Amino acid sequence: MTSEAAPVAGIPATRYAERLAGARREAARAGLDALLVGVGADLRYLTGYEAMPLERLTMLVLPSMDGAAATLIAPRLEVTPARGSAAARTGAIEIATWEETEDPMALVASRLATATRGRADEVATVAVSDGLRAAFVLGLQRVLPGARFSLTSSVLRALRMRKDADEVALLRAAAAAADRVVLTIANGRLVGRTEADVAREVRERLVAEGHDRAEFSIVASGPNSASPHHDASDRVIAGGEPIVLDIGGTVHGYASDTTRTLWVTGPEDAAPAPEFLRLYGVLQAAQQAATAAVRPGVACDAIDAAARDVITDAGYGPWFFHRTGHGIGLEGHEDPYIVAGNGEPLGAGMAFSVEPGIYLEGRYGARIEDIVVCGETGPDVLNLTTRDLLVVRG
Amino acid sequence: MTSEAAPVAGIPATRYAERLAGARREAARAGLDALLVGVGADLRYLTGYEAMPLERLTMLVLPSMDGAAATLIAPRLEVTPARGSAAARTGAIEIATWEETEDPMALVASRLATATRGRADEVATVAVSDGLRAAFVLGLQRVLPGARFSLTSSVLRALRMRKDADEVALLRAAAAAADRVVLTIANGRLVGRTEADVAREVRERLVAEGHDRAEFSIVASGPNSASPHHDASDRVIAGGEPIVLDIGGTVHGYASDTTRTLWVTGPEDAAPAPEFLRLYGVLQAAQQAATAAVRPGVACDAIDAAARDVITDAGYGPWFFHRTGHGIGLEGHEDPYIVAGNGEPLGAGMAFSVEPGIYLEGRYGARIEDIVVCGETGPDVLNLTTRDLLVVRG
Repeated sequence: MTSEAAPVAGIPATRYAERLAGARREAARAGLDALLVGVGADLRYLTGYEAMPLERLTMLVLPSMDGAAATLIAPRLEVTPARGSAAARTGAIEIATWEETEDPMALVASRLATATRGRADEVATVAVSDGLRAAFVLGLQRVLPGARFSLTSSVLRALRMRKDADEVALLRAAAAAADRVVLTIANGRLVGRTEADVAREVRERLVAEGHDRAEFSIVASGPNSASPHHDASDRVIAGGEPIVLDIGGTVHGYASDTTRTLWVTGPEDAAPAPEFLRLYGVLQAAQQAATAAVRPGVACDAIDAAARDVITDAGYGPWFFHRTGHGIGLEGHEDPYIVAGNGEPLGAGMAFSVEPGIYLEGRYGARIEDIVVCGETGPDVLNLTTRDLLVVRG
Repeated sequence: MTSEAAPVAGIPATRYAERLAGARREAARAGLDALLVGVGADLRYLTGYEAMPLERLTMLVLPSMDGAAATLIAPRLEVTPARGSAAARTGAIEIATWEETEDPMALVASRLATATRGRADEVATVAVSDGLRAAFVLGLQRVLPGARFSLTSSVLRALRMRKDADEVALLRAAAAAADRVVLTIANGRLVGRTEADVAREVRERLVAEGHDRAEFSIVASGPNSASPHHDASDRVIAGGEPIVLDIGGTVHGYASDTTRTLWVTGPEDAAPAPEFLRLYGVLQAAQQAATAAVRPGVACDAIDAAARDVITDAGYGPWFFHRTGHGIGLEGHEDPYIVAGNGEPLGAGMAFSVEPGIYLEGRYGARIEDIVVCGETGPDVLNLTTRDLLVVRG
């Protein structure tokens, strides 16, 4: 399988010093002494460093105090990749390593004490990354018994939610690659194959089309399409049924996530059931209404309501039982969440999914999902595959 | 790419009730009121349920008290796969769902209060899974302000470390599949390709050979071989240099992990450098010594020492700067760790890697890794590829 994708540049190495400065500023404003950032999206956002999320501690200690060093604590056997991270190469962070028989928690506490002029062992206010493993959270609580713990999302969300032009370019490249995979799958053979076999092809094509990796591949056929987070199974796809295809991966760490619904006619040309067409028409109108509502200042829950009202008015309300969308960036799901009760206003540069669905349990379901960036005056829709029902022979 | 792998059966559905009973018993013995288990290996071990590790809470509340229901709390949109889990199908757990606008933490607290006869809001002793996200740990600490928190590994490690015959069969199948990939890569074209391109092929072949998914693929060529956790890069492989190939994935959730070192001669037939051969010979003797030392009752750190002594005696001690191995099962790295200071005795059924390495920074390095199960009388080595240096034309 060869790639048709043109290579796309990643985030410039100089950007990380700016991001670190922004995070320090936000942390100080929130009254935090330091951010303690484990492996994951926050670490990649701040340093460009991606490590395997294993049981050895890798942690950025980022004090809010001006002039205190930002230190990436890493296991010695990973010192070479840690030094190779963009933030280390550009001198924005120091590297400190620990040996296999040392306690890395003590190293965190000691760096923190230096950064807070010795207060860390009595009282400190620290934020840990939202995805940090419980083993590390409890370990930090043990070495910092007086500290108050909160989550880095409280300060980093404001920075990470608004994508700059380079980030939008990566999200757009990821979306375009995922679109190509959707079209290839829709035009290929489906009848007689298992969902799992199609899912495997999706994963290979996501990588061939330029993703760093394939993250997920929902192939939900027939009655399985009524389960929003169905995992691809050994069910054999037949003619005369829908498939919900929800796929994604990452390009330079930035995620794709798109859903299209297919109707497979099979060799018998079994056309879509009339009620399925009615359901799909309602869904398409709902998805369109939510997307059209996107502009700066509109609240997240108003976007959710824009989709939900269309579906509820058509009588399908109880069968749209998930939120309309989620933010996307270095994580597949991140702030802002497009959900009832989230009154946060959209701002230019925010990127999120718009993905209503209608699911009739035991029968069938459908979902349409695009990634949308809130532009200065309206929506910038990154996925460009048609949103009409994809009726294919399969 | 078609599979040559014969399908292998997973864990029998009836096994989960036994595992849950064992976990309850261990929790009661440890004085814990309940285990709170998020998405990950513990949840899969206890229920057979595998969910995406996202921001929505999925949590097994497993009270230690006899007769109290074990409840899997899941987002409503994932109720179908949750109900389909082996433990739910066999009636060993109940399912409770939460809607998008509800607080799932309150649901955990309420289930826990029922299970502890109302004591949960005053004082409770709970263990959370080691990999639980910090956002959930802090959320639980908020709704259970009087509770004492520890980690599930303290009680589940004893159960999970000792693999039963079905688990060993899955580890063996995974190892065999990874072995086939190593041999195919070693016999294929290498010179002129990038590490990243070879890594992509490894991932595709791991799946084609019967893995559920490819988890990692280290392809470290030339000087990169001196960095144990090198990520495959855009470096082009040349003749006259080594490649450390460290790959793995999962079969029915159980992990493979094997490393072989190749010497690529290239079309110029550039034979291995004499010092590299000397280093490799020491390494091979060390890996063999550690494996040979495996039997019930021998301490983990004695296995580490068996490898380390050979390397130290040959003068390479400072360049073997990681532990000798890690346990393996539903996690790629888990208990027991084969590391200095771990005096835990091996027991029959424990599975772990034996993977010494020697790394000369800036020059080259080598590693040999097998998965070994501690048998009743000695080692049961799952990886069967030759441990001799693989000298290939590439």
